[in-house]
Amino acid sequence: MKKVAVLLSGAGFNDGAEINEAVLTLLHIGKQGATYQCFAPDVEQMDVVNHVSGETTQEKRNVMTEAARIARGDIKPLNELNVKEFDALILPGGYGVAKNFCDFAVNGADMTVNEQLLEILKEFAQERKPAGYICISPVLLPYVYGEGVHATIGNDKETANAIEKMGGTHVECPVDDIVLDDANLVVTTPAYMLAKSVADADKGIGKLVEKVLYMAA
Amino acid sequence: MKKVAVLLSGAGFNDGAEINEAVLTLLHIGKQGATYQCFAPDVEQMDVVNHVSGETTQEKRNVMTEAARIARGDIKPLNELNVKEFDALILPGGYGVAKNFCDFAVNGADMTVNEQLLEILKEFAQERKPAGYICISPVLLPYVYGEGVHATIGNDKETANAIEKMGGTHVECPVDDIVLDDANLVVTTPAYMLAKSVADADKGIGKLVEKVLYMAA
Repeated sequence: MKKVAVLLSGAGFNDGAEINEAVLTLLHIGKQGATYQCFAPDVEQMDVVNHVSGETTQEKRNVMTEAARIARGDIKPLNELNVKEFDALILPGGYGVAKNFCDFAVNGADMTVNEQLLEILKEFAQERKPAGYICISPVLLPYVYGEGVHATIGNDKETANAIEKMGGTHVECPVDDIVLDDANLVVTTPAYMLAKSVADADKGIGKLVEKVLYMAA
Repeated sequence: MKKVAVLLSGAGFNDGAEINEAVLTLLHIGKQGATYQCFAPDVEQMDVVNHVSGETTQEKRNVMTEAARIARGDIKPLNELNVKEFDALILPGGYGVAKNFCDFAVNGADMTVNEQLLEILKEFAQERKPAGYICISPVLLPYVYGEGVHATIGNDKETANAIEKMGGTHVECPVDDIVLDDANLVVTTPAYMLAKSVADADKGIGKLVEKVLYMAA
């Protein structure tokens, strides 16, 4: 049975993993006969956002502890991720990716990536294990696969330009579809960069999971 | 287009709404061509549980503010729910139901229900609008529909006995199925009372949403 490492950046689209994308990822992995283990960095979130008002609060929360709400407690710290034990990798989106996995939310194309995370992402690439990057998480791809990596975040010009500036090649894509970088075994889908509903996001994420599992050895 | 009120009790199965159940509910409502509005009580959670350790923390969190993480901010306080604007009602489960909607988690069959919530649930019943109660939320049903209401929480003896003690009739049910109380237009499914995976919970919740929407005027 194929096993997927799912990396979560918290729980809540404004400061963590986009919850719907994360659940849909786990749903489709299961429906397609594979298994998964969730991981998250055991670090403090960049910030905590009140999801009613949209305002930043004074609270402190831990990325892994919050991500555990999605994973029903079955989550491990990122430093326990042994790439050799997995066939593939998937990153749901959410601002958590741009705040807790890297600092794209603050620095845009001048961003830096969490070192531990980058090492793991690169190891999946080096081992030629397929990877799915959802929503905003393709901003990480130029750092992992280098120049020319093909990816989509939908059609948001500012984010697409940032990906191009970092060396990636952005491809426009509707919410119900995926972009495949054949050479790198990388699949991307816009999800909530474009989705108006959970059902919208479901289609692209279903296709992404299917393609990632198909490519997994 | 049929419109469903979805009541959320937080975000995270140990102290709020079961996240997977909530997302699957929203997914199936959308996939089946209906719309929804999420609501939650604007009150402090009974407690906050660290979902890695399972331990209660000293934090204070608000039920609606946390539920907004699932609803992507599109949530309203329970006191703004006008039953006449909706065709049906669905309650996902999670300990939040047993902690924030009532005090079943503390008092079992001697529980009391949040008064504002109970009034709304009863109004849906009086208006003969169908309702779906997922996972642990059927513990509320005897208070809403009175003696003899048929419901399932799967096969957990202690919870089933409590429902019977409160006047309900418990029916055993596997995770991929539903129990229908025809007279009351109430549908229940065990979900994470039994589910071992998101894909497990998906089947029963899909059937529940289908039946609720079918019965909606």
